[in-house]
Amino acid sequence: MAESWPFLDTFEPNFRPLVVIELAKGTKEETIEWFTKRIVDKKANGGEYNMIFCAQLLVKPLVTENGDEHFYLVGASHLRLLLGAETVGLVKECTDNSMRTFTYSSRKTFKDFADDNHNFLTMAECQYIIKHELENLRAKDEKMIPGYPQAKLYPGKSIVRRLLTSGILVQIFPLHDREELKKLRHSWYGRVKVGYQPLDEIRCYFGETIALYFGFLEYFTFALIPMAVIGIPYYVFAWEDYDKYVMFATFNLLWSTVILEVWKRICAIMTYRWGTLLMKRQFEEPRPGFHGVLGINPVTGREEPVYSSIKRQIRIYLVSLPFVCLCLYFSLYVMMIYFDLEQWALDYHEVNESNFSSLMLFVPSIIYAIVIEIMNRIYRYAAEFLTSWENHRLESSYQNHLILKVLVFNFLNCFASLFYIAFVLFDMKLLRQSLATLLITSQILNQFAESLLPYWLQKRHKKRMKKRMCSLKTDTDLSLVEQVNLEKEMGTYFGTFDDYLELFLQFGYVSLFSCVYPLAAVFAVLNNITEIYSDALKMCRVYKRPFAEPTANIGVWQLAFETMSVISVVTNCILIGMSPQVNALFTDSKTDLILTVALVEHLLLAIKFIMAFVIPDKPRDIQIKLAKLEFESLEALKQQVRATDTYNSEK
Amino acid sequence: MAESWPFLDTFEPNFRPLVVIELAKGTKEETIEWFTKRIVDKKANGGEYNMIFCAQLLVKPLVTENGDEHFYLVGASHLRLLLGAETVGLVKECTDNSMRTFTYSSRKTFKDFADDNHNFLTMAECQYIIKHELENLRAKDEKMIPGYPQAKLYPGKSIVRRLLTSGILVQIFPLHDREELKKLRHSWYGRVKVGYQPLDEIRCYFGETIALYFGFLEYFTFALIPMAVIGIPYYVFAWEDYDKYVMFATFNLLWSTVILEVWKRICAIMTYRWGTLLMKRQFEEPRPGFHGVLGINPVTGREEPVYSSIKRQIRIYLVSLPFVCLCLYFSLYVMMIYFDLEQWALDYHEVNESNFSSLMLFVPSIIYAIVIEIMNRIYRYAAEFLTSWENHRLESSYQNHLILKVLVFNFLNCFASLFYIAFVLFDMKLLRQSLATLLITSQILNQFAESLLPYWLQKRHKKRMKKRMCSLKTDTDLSLVEQVNLEKEMGTYFGTFDDYLELFLQFGYVSLFSCVYPLAAVFAVLNNITEIYSDALKMCRVYKRPFAEPTANIGVWQLAFETMSVISVVTNCILIGMSPQVNALFTDSKTDLILTVALVEHLLLAIKFIMAFVIPDKPRDIQIKLAKLEFESLEALKQQVRATDTYNSEK
Repeated sequence: MAESWPFLDTFEPNFRPLVVIELAKGTKEETIEWFTKRIVDKKANGGEYNMIFCAQLLVKPLVTENGDEHFYLVGASHLRLLLGAETVGLVKECTDNSMRTFTYSSRKTFKDFADDNHNFLTMAECQYIIKHELENLRAKDEKMIPGYPQAKLYPGKSIVRRLLTSGILVQIFPLHDREELKKLRHSWYGRVKVGYQPLDEIRCYFGETIALYFGFLEYFTFALIPMAVIGIPYYVFAWEDYDKYVMFATFNLLWSTVILEVWKRICAIMTYRWGTLLMKRQFEEPRPGFHGVLGINPVTGREEPVYSSIKRQIRIYLVSLPFVCLCLYFSLYVMMIYFDLEQWALDYHEVNESNFSSLMLFVPSIIYAIVIEIMNRIYRYAAEFLTSWENHRLESSYQNHLILKVLVFNFLNCFASLFYIAFVLFDMKLLRQSLATLLITSQILNQFAESLLPYWLQKRHKKRMKKRMCSLKTDTDLSLVEQVNLEKEMGTYFGTFDDYLELFLQFGYVSLFSCVYPLAAVFAVLNNITEIYSDALKMCRVYKRPFAEPTANIGVWQLAFETMSVISVVTNCILIGMSPQVNALFTDSKTDLILTVALVEHLLLAIKFIMAFVIPDKPRDIQIKLAKLEFESLEALKQQVRATDTYNSEK
Repeated sequence: MAESWPFLDTFEPNFRPLVVIELAKGTKEETIEWFTKRIVDKKANGGEYNMIFCAQLLVKPLVTENGDEHFYLVGASHLRLLLGAETVGLVKECTDNSMRTFTYSSRKTFKDFADDNHNFLTMAECQYIIKHELENLRAKDEKMIPGYPQAKLYPGKSIVRRLLTSGILVQIFPLHDREELKKLRHSWYGRVKVGYQPLDEIRCYFGETIALYFGFLEYFTFALIPMAVIGIPYYVFAWEDYDKYVMFATFNLLWSTVILEVWKRICAIMTYRWGTLLMKRQFEEPRPGFHGVLGINPVTGREEPVYSSIKRQIRIYLVSLPFVCLCLYFSLYVMMIYFDLEQWALDYHEVNESNFSSLMLFVPSIIYAIVIEIMNRIYRYAAEFLTSWENHRLESSYQNHLILKVLVFNFLNCFASLFYIAFVLFDMKLLRQSLATLLITSQILNQFAESLLPYWLQKRHKKRMKKRMCSLKTDTDLSLVEQVNLEKEMGTYFGTFDDYLELFLQFGYVSLFSCVYPLAAVFAVLNNITEIYSDALKMCRVYKRPFAEPTANIGVWQLAFETMSVISVVTNCILIGMSPQVNALFTDSKTDLILTVALVEHLLLAIKFIMAFVIPDKPRDIQIKLAKLEFESLEALKQQVRATDTYNSEK
């Protein structure tokens, strides 16, 4: 490779726009010039550190109908993308069906590779590479962004992140591929069919994180079917036998362990096929919001803001933790008020029975539902603020802390009232009722608020846009201008957090009280089938295309689901112990009953843990493939050391 | 590097014997010649596969007093050892205080390296390298061992392992270094002193596995001191207050979680310093006893015996598991007989009170103790046989399955009677008595049987040998001959299994019933202090020097100790719930008592799991150092890929 990658030419006749950059209106010329120059400039050879000052991508301004020039289309030559794939460490399939990290020098050994095959990298991968290159574009010796003295820079600071935080850069988003999207829509939800989702196609279009969510959603739906099938006769025949309930609960508990363990295996199979299981974690850069005094990062030795981890620990344990506890306490307090109100409404209705009083019966529930919704929203803001204030260096650690905070609060908000009804009021009938109401209303509301409403708004907006567009068809590039104009207005998809949270709470409804309300699984299955369609609709129609994010598993959610399944062992055992049928068996001694329940509970927990320990997380063939790769890399290392020796001795 | 590593000369004037090979008496000349030739022959360059047919070590026959020539001393040139260190992937400290994998080409960057410094590698490391080279000496195209047609070989089969299994090779053991050993003995247990063990020196002499055991023993002893200190006043003042016991038990439970978590951190610090935390796991070869039809290993692609993993699973779950369960049942059955016998003896004593009858009271315990000992031994053989029959490919997996089997049975044998006394007979006084008796007698017996007895036998044997030796002082090499003759007769140290098992059972005595017998920790501390000395004595005086074994943690024992600590939460909660003081608090409702106990137990378990989750397994500075290494290797990879590109484009 010579001085400046001469074979990489910035000019390419068939420029394919991949990513859109929107700058703020009225951004200064010198800033735009400096920024685009940095994006376009050729990388000079000479050490990693020199490589990160320019991106060697292609940029083309997009002239919109009113002549504004604040949209820029970014693309890259085929060669540049291949080199980028090597930088981000993409793993692709070789001709011998093994998965290997792609390198430009070994490109010929990869399946479907040809110098003229521009589909070797999927569009999502290309956009991910461009995003990575843009985010890794770093300041050289600039002290500030040209034209904006208040936007400070220091050597090594990510330019794009500073532009974003100082408001000069409005957004960066990848473009949809209308043709691909149409195909995907058709095979995903276009026709009514029974079958699996086209996960590989979803992955090619939206990336691994989203494909994995849909994979999990589908898997989880299938996994719930046995529960649902077994649950139906309980409802149909109104079974109330003790042994049948115990059987159902036991099956449920062991089943939920099995499905969570098996998911890990299925996830490994999928992510192996997609290459992300093998993808080496890149060194994570600090997240945009991270701040601190300039210092030397002990890991990289580079200058960047540093922040004492002890200070962060103090903030977490002395501020965030007490705050979360306080919020939890407050939420419980509100719940107690709700139960008081409900009692008061009941009493009122009994004393002066009238139409008004029977309407009054609903008031507490409505108030409580509204209050919960408000609390959830306020808490979410507070959690985001606090987690941001904790000043985590890495995005992943920020996300984990945020998820944990939100998860705990949502769990309590959703289930505290049910726990109260079950274990304080001992009212199984009310529990069943509340459970059904909560489950069904939350599902309906969610689907409406999440997909259908935005879809409808989006459609209306689109129509209006189209009308305006049609009236000034002047440019040949109009379809692209139109597309950018349409997509820039679409909502931003903020990641899979809310989708997983919904599934997590649903799992709670199904498993925590499964022995009281076996029908929950049926509703969950029905909901998830429509959920797949409405989420697919949401991804394809409502939101901007999100950047692909390689991932090897569902991360902290696996832990969350496993914890829920442990808690559900405890709740189900208690519920069965409290059922009148079981109590009838232990008429002479309540102590024996409790001891038996405790024993059974401990046994079930022990079985759960042993099962989780015994079932391997990865199927055997994946294990062998991974071992083979490790073995090969060890062998290669030995060879290479020997080759270096030969080389040195030849010198 | 040229044809055959010409700079490595087999002849070296200052030959330092490191390892002794003992062949069977009357081994055929051609076999000896073939074997030594393979050990001595120069490695030819040309691919990994050519490297493993000869070891390029130094061999010297040892002529014993009666002219037998079946001992061979093996050594290696300094250069050969350095290249071997690279092969096994040793990690050493660099001049900049970071730990890096040693390579010969980068040797100058390592601390204390000099071409004439023969102490750069410790003797234990040298012996480990030689062992590795010998074990990796593989058959080329021989169909059998020359001279022994029944000892079949196939390409790639380890020669040494086949020689061992066919009885031609009696043993391979590393030599002691008398001077070093003397120094080590002095600083370890030579003088009476209060302070830490010289763990780094132990590691240099005996390797990481043994040093880690002594490190754990020392850490565990220190960790028990707080428990012991808090436990003493309970005994001295005969405290019987409910709240004090609850406090002690709660402290114990949380403390045991903390010490196990902190141990992981300390272990990481130690093994980072020793380099084993970073050492890449080498590809594991099949264990000697592994058999199967010749096939292709799916990982390496080499020809070797393969055995279906499904067959192994069937053997494990359909034979071993039922057998273990049967043994456990049998052990429980024997225990019940013992309690019947004890009852019968008590009754007998009450009816006809005499000297004979009061003697008879001890008979059941004695019989039971003997039966347990016999059962333990038989079971150990059975477990070894079964695990061997399960035909595990890897030594590590064999060890794990064996440990699990033995652990479960020993746990039951040791604690079943105590559980029975506590939770069936409800006899706290008897429990305390039995616990004290079991703990103290087992400790005394162990120390005697493990170290002092062999030491005494060894000493007697040595004296006899010395007498015989002195009568025929003819050779100048006599001191070496003498040393080999002495050491070959010493017992073989079979690894740390029994030592850890002892500690594990001790941990059980201390934690399972801690609220009943707070003095257990005191005895454990006292025992461990003498245990350190007697184990040190055992290692230095009684056994052959074992080969060093690099390891990064205490492996499956960490899990075993953690499981014990979870079980002890359950037992302690039940014990406290059963105590008369607590019962007195809940006079009106036993149900409330049980519910409270169950609640507290679940809370404690939850706290335990949260603590284990929150405390990081590695201290921050180790985390940073590891991240730094990972970052550097990623950077180096990028550089290297680029360098290869340059190289290719230059061509």
